[in-house]
Amino acid sequence: MQKPSNPQGTRDFGPEVMRKRNIILDTIQGVFKKYAFEPLETPAIENLSMLTGKYGDEGDKLLYKIRSNREIVHEIGDEKAQKITELFPDRWIPGKSKLGLRYDLTVPFARFVAQHRNEISFPFRRYQIQPVWRADRPQKGRFREFTQCDADCIGSSSLIHEADLIHIYDEVFNKLGFSKAVIKLNHRKFLEAMVDELSIGFPVSRFTSTLDKLDKIGKDGVIIELINAGVSEIKCKKLFELITISDFNETILDKLTSSFNHNALAMSAIGDLRELVRFLGNSSRSIKLELDLSLARGLDYYTGCIFEAVIPESGIGSVSGGGRYDNLTDIFGLKDVSGVGISFGVDRIYEILDSQDLWPNVNSNNQSVLICHFGQETQEYGVRLAQKLRQSEISVLVFPDKKRINKQLDFANNKSFSHAIVIGQDEMESGILTLKELFSGDQMKLSIEDCISRLKL
Amino acid sequence: MQKPSNPQGTRDFGPEVMRKRNIILDTIQGVFKKYAFEPLETPAIENLSMLTGKYGDEGDKLLYKIRSNREIVHEIGDEKAQKITELFPDRWIPGKSKLGLRYDLTVPFARFVAQHRNEISFPFRRYQIQPVWRADRPQKGRFREFTQCDADCIGSSSLIHEADLIHIYDEVFNKLGFSKAVIKLNHRKFLEAMVDELSIGFPVSRFTSTLDKLDKIGKDGVIIELINAGVSEIKCKKLFELITISDFNETILDKLTSSFNHNALAMSAIGDLRELVRFLGNSSRSIKLELDLSLARGLDYYTGCIFEAVIPESGIGSVSGGGRYDNLTDIFGLKDVSGVGISFGVDRIYEILDSQDLWPNVNSNNQSVLICHFGQETQEYGVRLAQKLRQSEISVLVFPDKKRINKQLDFANNKSFSHAIVIGQDEMESGILTLKELFSGDQMKLSIEDCISRLKL
Repeated sequence: MQKPSNPQGTRDFGPEVMRKRNIILDTIQGVFKKYAFEPLETPAIENLSMLTGKYGDEGDKLLYKIRSNREIVHEIGDEKAQKITELFPDRWIPGKSKLGLRYDLTVPFARFVAQHRNEISFPFRRYQIQPVWRADRPQKGRFREFTQCDADCIGSSSLIHEADLIHIYDEVFNKLGFSKAVIKLNHRKFLEAMVDELSIGFPVSRFTSTLDKLDKIGKDGVIIELINAGVSEIKCKKLFELITISDFNETILDKLTSSFNHNALAMSAIGDLRELVRFLGNSSRSIKLELDLSLARGLDYYTGCIFEAVIPESGIGSVSGGGRYDNLTDIFGLKDVSGVGISFGVDRIYEILDSQDLWPNVNSNNQSVLICHFGQETQEYGVRLAQKLRQSEISVLVFPDKKRINKQLDFANNKSFSHAIVIGQDEMESGILTLKELFSGDQMKLSIEDCISRLKL
Repeated sequence: MQKPSNPQGTRDFGPEVMRKRNIILDTIQGVFKKYAFEPLETPAIENLSMLTGKYGDEGDKLLYKIRSNREIVHEIGDEKAQKITELFPDRWIPGKSKLGLRYDLTVPFARFVAQHRNEISFPFRRYQIQPVWRADRPQKGRFREFTQCDADCIGSSSLIHEADLIHIYDEVFNKLGFSKAVIKLNHRKFLEAMVDELSIGFPVSRFTSTLDKLDKIGKDGVIIELINAGVSEIKCKKLFELITISDFNETILDKLTSSFNHNALAMSAIGDLRELVRFLGNSSRSIKLELDLSLARGLDYYTGCIFEAVIPESGIGSVSGGGRYDNLTDIFGLKDVSGVGISFGVDRIYEILDSQDLWPNVNSNNQSVLICHFGQETQEYGVRLAQKLRQSEISVLVFPDKKRINKQLDFANNKSFSHAIVIGQDEMESGILTLKELFSGDQMKLSIEDCISRLKL
């Protein structure tokens, strides 16, 4: 006998968790579709050469590599393989590994676009909701297998996509009940411009990683680091005037223009943001959009607007991020294609919904009836009733075994059935059923037809 | 630059294929839910020990094993690993492999049930739709990564589940337009009884593999094999009288009873089938249900009813199979739990729908509008219009770039948009839009409100 277990850092999703996860995934997918993003799925296993070198040294260490016994046999011959397998049943045999598990959805998307460039009509907007794998040290909230939800648009530099992505944030968070969500917005070129302006003697990446510490070490800590790097106190003060802006509108852009009007990089960023304001128009949003010049986002490949979405007071960092990139497909030989995308973190969203008990109607999503009975004759009546209800697309189970009624009702409650119908001699003779609503405990006597209408409400 | 490619035996599913696959998956999932099967997902990576030895020697060879660089480093030390990686960047370092990729959904389901036995209310009906991986030699219609759609009920020996599974077949094939589908039914104990009756001197498994060849070598071929194995000609004749039965009803069961009434195994099978007939009652089915005593199904673990679904004239074998098993969770320490389940082959169903052009309304599934324009001003009007349509849950894209109208309409056709609206000066001034139906070519002039009503039909 083997003690059953799932690997560290992986999870089984039982029915209750699945129903909750599906609320998140269906919401996001529904909104992606509404903004005319098209579905794409790529295989979980990729050629290892497509993955290595794409995620930095740290990323490479977290890649899962794959081999099959068949490959091993093919490489060293059947007899030798047999012998080694007998001697060391769970040992790898050295040899080339050609396959790896998907690490994110971005590189496979870039691979797909480059590979199918001649069949795709650009701009190509795709959404992709699939698991990814990373050999990270498992810890609270960090898993080795987890789902990413990405939407990207590639092959167009119009800021209309950024506007659509902001609308997507608005709708998704609205539908999930995150009324306090904030979208932070910045432009990569502002970060470069600030490095220019401050005459900081180190690359943008070090500047952004200093800014990234703002939450941890505070304004004073950042200023000390900058002063140590040779920036004057006056320039630091000026920097903080800029990065504490938090609105996003024409007036702010005018103000930034007067601060930055001699800096071509900054003016290019402002130009993009003006176009974005135009596309957003006066459309109503229910969540806040903030320009945050301290927003850096880790990834080096961003070249334009960058986004981050946070739920204040959730105790959890960002639940989504993204931005514009210009060189994603270069490595696969497709040059000069601009794209922009965002990615939702399903696990973090799940955690916030769970801890704040914000689940929207989990129960009404699971409208289903258990038919209970007293034995063979009433059960068979129940089976015929079940088929009638199913013809009206109602989800039904006839309790399959012979147990006492209260055990059958316990089962209905355990499984989150929304309703129960108990079939006895009376019900069989009169055709009038008692429909029990399990959440409220209410019950009512109805004909089969009325029962169906009630359940289809 | 790297030439982009996906691994042999894997597939990218672009938007068009995704939409078609989703018709199949949504249909099957919808019916599973209606019969009160609950969702379950297990991780793609399992502890290797949970997988090895479960699928026979051949199966073990097809298992994919997984390692991460992090594990390797942990095992042999950072410095040594670094050196080896530098010298042999794509070579495995020998060591224990602890993880493998899921080979099917049945073993992970058994593992889940045994592991969570104390939290599950039995009977537990679950459906699971996830990819599995096998290092098979890729060939037409056989893939290394493919999706399985399983529904199983565990913890109940009632034949009500078999009846429900037959109803599920009926509904799924009906909804997919397979009006000629046939469900073949047999009982594992009939096969054992026939071996008894014919006094064949070899195990049931060899008898079933002989019967399995019926399609290939014909009745005469099977008779020759049986005679060579020592079965008398008279007994062979009697066998074929039995296995050419094809109806399934009380009368047939009475006839089988008179042939088999001295054989306890056969009588037990007949008892089960009588219970099944009772549960099926006189419910109407639109597809054929056949008792086929020659149906064997490869898998050794079946102990009761076995199923197979075929689409005649499709040139493709079975599109689904399943049956009752009694000892699935034994290996994980949970004894005496009976279960029954079926599994749909999505790829085969896809192939038949495609080759017979049976896709039900792919287009109406993709109701979406492209808004075309002549430049900045009309595009911005389009953006505002798009938000209005989206408020009514209509899927919309505003053409993002500046191109000639006919290029924009080409794009709409390439992407299978169902409708296009061209915004010009007239439309902006009058608020009357021209809605173009792209499949029919029809167009009509409508106010925004009428446009919305029309699109929501």
